Amino acid sequence: MATEQSTSAVTRRTFLQAVGAGSGAGVMFATMGALGLAPTAAAQPRPESWVPPRGSDFSLTGRSAKKVVVVGGGPAGLTTAYELQKAGYRVTVLEARHRVGGRTLTIRGGDTETDTDGVTQKARFADGVYLNAGAGRIAQWMVTMDYLRELGVPYEMFTNANADAYLYNERTGATPGNPVRYRTAKADVFGYTSELLHLATDQGALDQRLTEADKENLRSFLRSWGSLRSDGTYAGGSNRGYAVYPSAWNEHGTPLPGPGSVSEVLASRVGQYFPFEINWEQSMLMFQPKGGMDTTYQYMVRAIGAHNVHLDSPVTGVRTTDRGVTVTYTQHRKQRQLTADFAVVTAPAGLMRGWDTTWGPQVDAALGEFAVGSPAGKIGLQYRSRFWEDDHRIFGGITETDMDLAHIWYPSSGYGERKGLVVGYYNTGTNARTYADLSPREREARAVAQGVKIHGEKYRTELESSFSVAWHKVPYIEGAWAYPDTSSAGFRLLQQGAGNVYFAGDWMSEVSAWQHGALWSARYAVQALHQRVMAS
Amino acid sequence: MATEQSTSAVTRRTFLQAVGAGSGAGVMFATMGALGLAPTAAAQPRPESWVPPRGSDFSLTGRSAKKVVVVGGGPAGLTTAYELQKAGYRVTVLEARHRVGGRTLTIRGGDTETDTDGVTQKARFADGVYLNAGAGRIAQWMVTMDYLRELGVPYEMFTNANADAYLYNERTGATPGNPVRYRTAKADVFGYTSELLHLATDQGALDQRLTEADKENLRSFLRSWGSLRSDGTYAGGSNRGYAVYPSAWNEHGTPLPGPGSVSEVLASRVGQYFPFEINWEQSMLMFQPKGGMDTTYQYMVRAIGAHNVHLDSPVTGVRTTDRGVTVTYTQHRKQRQLTADFAVVTAPAGLMRGWDTTWGPQVDAALGEFAVGSPAGKIGLQYRSRFWEDDHRIFGGITETDMDLAHIWYPSSGYGERKGLVVGYYNTGTNARTYADLSPREREARAVAQGVKIHGEKYRTELESSFSVAWHKVPYIEGAWAYPDTSSAGFRLLQQGAGNVYFAGDWMSEVSAWQHGALWSARYAVQALHQRVMAS
Repeated sequence: MATEQSTSAVTRRTFLQAVGAGSGAGVMFATMGALGLAPTAAAQPRPESWVPPRGSDFSLTGRSAKKVVVVGGGPAGLTTAYELQKAGYRVTVLEARHRVGGRTLTIRGGDTETDTDGVTQKARFADGVYLNAGAGRIAQWMVTMDYLRELGVPYEMFTNANADAYLYNERTGATPGNPVRYRTAKADVFGYTSELLHLATDQGALDQRLTEADKENLRSFLRSWGSLRSDGTYAGGSNRGYAVYPSAWNEHGTPLPGPGSVSEVLASRVGQYFPFEINWEQSMLMFQPKGGMDTTYQYMVRAIGAHNVHLDSPVTGVRTTDRGVTVTYTQHRKQRQLTADFAVVTAPAGLMRGWDTTWGPQVDAALGEFAVGSPAGKIGLQYRSRFWEDDHRIFGGITETDMDLAHIWYPSSGYGERKGLVVGYYNTGTNARTYADLSPREREARAVAQGVKIHGEKYRTELESSFSVAWHKVPYIEGAWAYPDTSSAGFRLLQQGAGNVYFAGDWMSEVSAWQHGALWSARYAVQALHQRVMAS
Repeated sequence: MATEQSTSAVTRRTFLQAVGAGSGAGVMFATMGALGLAPTAAAQPRPESWVPPRGSDFSLTGRSAKKVVVVGGGPAGLTTAYELQKAGYRVTVLEARHRVGGRTLTIRGGDTETDTDGVTQKARFADGVYLNAGAGRIAQWMVTMDYLRELGVPYEMFTNANADAYLYNERTGATPGNPVRYRTAKADVFGYTSELLHLATDQGALDQRLTEADKENLRSFLRSWGSLRSDGTYAGGSNRGYAVYPSAWNEHGTPLPGPGSVSEVLASRVGQYFPFEINWEQSMLMFQPKGGMDTTYQYMVRAIGAHNVHLDSPVTGVRTTDRGVTVTYTQHRKQRQLTADFAVVTAPAGLMRGWDTTWGPQVDAALGEFAVGSPAGKIGLQYRSRFWEDDHRIFGGITETDMDLAHIWYPSSGYGERKGLVVGYYNTGTNARTYADLSPREREARAVAQGVKIHGEKYRTELESSFSVAWHKVPYIEGAWAYPDTSSAGFRLLQQGAGNVYFAGDWMSEVSAWQHGALWSARYAVQALHQRVMAS
């Protein structure tokens, strides 16, 4: 699950800028080649940072494999169990909820969820229609891809950006009633900014910074990038798109009205949405498992063995003992206990503090740093027709708005099918709380009323059913994500584990709110545990 | 088939700029809404520009349906036959080649092609592996999508742009031996251009053009778009990507070396590739039929009836007679004739001038305007492993180079399969002739030697087989495309047809070199023919 605003850990960014500033310019595009990494610039952590445990580690050293209880059946927990079991560990996963996957939650027809406030929804989606209520996308560089591939999960493109999706800013007074397509907004913003920089360059304003050769290279780029005319000015052009596209014979196409003046284009603030597309976590191409994000974890459960994964088993205690750990949990309203050599705990950090534990106040305090789960929400709107494709010719991607629904996602699959599901809002913070405080019907009505402004009445009349998730109201999760201060002493303390207990979860990573972070945290916990076993 | 350099018809662009200049600024983002088109801004030609003929046009008016011979079984010819037959016309398609599809040519294992110079290649591709040797992509707004949908052709994303694909400029001295990823190049180019414009704005260089409010809006955009530091300067950052990406615990990620200086970044000329992504014809999202571009035309043949489509039947004469038309063609080495009420001719314009016709010297001269078919070529390289995914983490998209191979396309499908096919060159003009003049083996060797510079030795060692197409050597096609001057008198003359003959083909369109243009030209020819029938 990715917060769109997030450029994630502040500390990481700061660190990198410090490195960037110190590493000096003049290393001309000395990319991976200079590091001896080219041409297989695979860009995963160093090989030595992940040495998966192997069965032969036990068989060749005369050790017997250990038993591990994994608390939590989300991406971190299941990956922990999967990697340990591949090496011969005996694993048991205890999941508090009625299903695995955690925040990789795919809602399909028939699925039921009850929130912490007692409100129950049952999804009435058609066969093949689903909502990825949490995690929704995977970047190519993420380790999530490796697990899809290793497990054989079929995957497909996730449409994270589309030139024909809309931008709709009603607060700026720019586009109310007039959604503008990304391609049009880009042509105008890039056109005018290119014109301005071309002008400043011509006027000598940058002569302190640029040589004559620089200036010619710059102008050459700007003329092309900004579709500038020979005099260096921007006056629209085909990249804006058309009211009616060119076809044949002498149908030249009907241009869109505009562009507006440079002041109008800047004041519309459509450019605020563009950085998303070049963001390190969000740049296309991106991917998703076919059929829903939780498919990955269904495959993982199959690999682990479903009998080793206990659902509806919330943990209430994790104690280190002389012989290992004792984990206390509830199942069928009865309190039960499991003993093992180790436990790996992947529950949301903030929810563990009421547990009966032996890890002491310092660890409790460190866990407290991640106690506030941010709110985020999504609604899936099932439509009887795919009017966004039929009428708007939008075959995927995301429409951005300054309304409280924030983002609208069009589906990346189901092309050619009759029905489809649009994510009618994906919002965070105050907006997410606003929707969460409404009943499911009211959420739907609010989302639809806003979406109609962009898509017209079909956005209301074609609707068949909806399902909404408010993450801070989901039992045993109670939040969308937490951003750790990865430079804090507490964060480092948790990496060491406590007694025979290790911690994992996206909140134990440098890439919080992404499966990538959760999966890597699992790998590191597995590795720490295994190294200890091998050293004993 | 889309030429990547092309921003297509100059006349159209000029026309639009004239309109843009005259239409005046101040129409702030008054998009389709202002035209009364919102919110279904479908952007197809006006409804009245395509009124498909219907069977009831005949049955309700007591007319009998006419017989039409269609010359050419490419997109224009098959669409002509398909639309006419839906309305009750009796159609026969004569295709000169051994297969339909024209320049929508999909090469699969077992396919054989013999060039005009007598060189024969047989494809040894594995099951499911194919090369789209001609047309390869479809934009959402294109009418091609409508035919996929009407015919029920399964389709999927075409990966026309990928932040993790490479840019490789060896002539600029910028990146030899060091392919740079799009995301890195973009971060640096957008970073420095944002810094420069921010600086010029701060220094008052643009005070004649910008108000204080404009300047603040502009700076706000630039700081975000360029990942600028608080002092307005660019010093790299996470959007460049990483040598090693951040993972968990305290693995912050290893930054790439750089960025280089502003002079180095500009001199590298990586920015020349960026406009492609915002081009009106090329912007993502784009699509392709599953299994190969010619699938669409296989579906069309099925709809028309395979018995109505004659292969290996090159036409040598089209004569208007008192009662209609007589079309002369060769089949099984025998000359044959078909008579019909009308003919619609969709052969490449330049190839018709040797035919026995009645349309006279003016039409011949007009056809001569499209006589020069531009060269273009592609090679498909089948690899035993998908190392671009495994090692480079490139799951589709296009790598751009300044070598004579020009573009390298990674596959948009087959994820998770063992083998895959890379388009090892897609080039035009002189580069295409250079490769076309080589033997197929030499073409492969030349393409591979260049690709190795970017991808390493696996680009050579994993190769299993290849197949290359040089479009100006394909019999009965002899060129990749021709760009018409759509404002010429000859172009208008051809729209009127000649006697009982009509013309269609992408060269009769405003969007030459795309299926969209061919399909619309077919629609217009069908409509002209049908209106005449209804008026008679």
